[in-house]
Amino acid sequence: MKAILIYSGGLDSTTLLQEYRDSIALAVTFDYGSKHNAREIAFAVENCKRLGIRHMVIPLDFIGKYFRSDLLLSGGEIPTGEYAEDNMRSTVVPFRNGIMLAVAAGLAESYELDTVLLANHSGDHSIYPDCRPEFIDAFDKAAAAGTYNGVRIVSPYCNLTKRDIALRGRSLGMDYSLTYSCYKGGEKHCGVCGTCRERKEALAGFDPTEYEA
Amino acid sequence: MKAILIYSGGLDSTTLLQEYRDSIALAVTFDYGSKHNAREIAFAVENCKRLGIRHMVIPLDFIGKYFRSDLLLSGGEIPTGEYAEDNMRSTVVPFRNGIMLAVAAGLAESYELDTVLLANHSGDHSIYPDCRPEFIDAFDKAAAAGTYNGVRIVSPYCNLTKRDIALRGRSLGMDYSLTYSCYKGGEKHCGVCGTCRERKEALAGFDPTEYEA
Repeated sequence: MKAILIYSGGLDSTTLLQEYRDSIALAVTFDYGSKHNAREIAFAVENCKRLGIRHMVIPLDFIGKYFRSDLLLSGGEIPTGEYAEDNMRSTVVPFRNGIMLAVAAGLAESYELDTVLLANHSGDHSIYPDCRPEFIDAFDKAAAAGTYNGVRIVSPYCNLTKRDIALRGRSLGMDYSLTYSCYKGGEKHCGVCGTCRERKEALAGFDPTEYEA
Repeated sequence: MKAILIYSGGLDSTTLLQEYRDSIALAVTFDYGSKHNAREIAFAVENCKRLGIRHMVIPLDFIGKYFRSDLLLSGGEIPTGEYAEDNMRSTVVPFRNGIMLAVAAGLAESYELDTVLLANHSGDHSIYPDCRPEFIDAFDKAAAAGTYNGVRIVSPYCNLTKRDIALRGRSLGMDYSLTYSCYKGGEKHCGVCGTCRERKEALAGFDPTEYEA
């Protein structure tokens, strides 16, 4: 496998970066105008440097400009309820994974890589339609059919929970202080937004994060 | 159907714009750094204005910067053989339709539209893997699964030839002087690149185009 990783700098994709480091030729972070992009990107850059993996930041300015989502700088306030609650739906960026996978598939063909790695997990399925297995399967077929070299989509954590991923990372010796999750994008994790709550649950017992609340 | 059209300003998608004008709420042109983008876009803007259809130009700068293709300003010379010849393979932009469809699906969800229209046709199948029916079918499933409102991909010309499209356009009263095809991007159509040759064949007998050669 010669892979490109879609890499946010968060808990899930940093674990995948660590676990598949020997197969990853290129990691790509997308700057799509979210409130937490700047902070995520700083962590992504740092982790790729540390592991010696080539890294690219691709701006997708049109998302911040034309798409509707409270996750974006152009959107409303980040809700502070549970991750899976309906109010978190306002943070969905329409077809974000579809867009990132498509760009990554094109890059993979350009650079003669055969696989796109994505760190979606089962906890995302209820809120994000483009994290579900049926979406990933269909997109995998589209990428294989639509590229000369038959690029495949691989999502090793698709049926794991975020807790499973964190435990897996711990067994790999991951230092989770080198990852960033908070949707608010502040210097410290807020501790109350949906992703901070989810992060706390995943890392319970070995959480190095300093939270505001 | 409330649709978004992926609209280049060329012969095929301008015919689709004309034929489906009553269902098209938004037309989107992608500026991905090709040699003929500037000229195509001018035609696209003009046709949307004429038909009173909302139009958006979305820059995809990363393609020109990172992707490899002779169609791009960053690539080599445009070959001047037959469209279907192997040398035209150098003009393939990896997974271009995948990327445009993904952005359009996200826009469709953002603007509460249910369909993405694409003007791919059977003459593209041999060179462009992301124009083939099996790609379109898989992407359609991915878009439907990956969006809240189940966006569908519709490609009415998928099994038509470019000649079929031109004849259809003629019966709709199309003026093909209002479209642009040439990969070289000059003021006049060059008449010898693959797409110019294909355009000539399609419009034979009623071609209003002034060619250099």
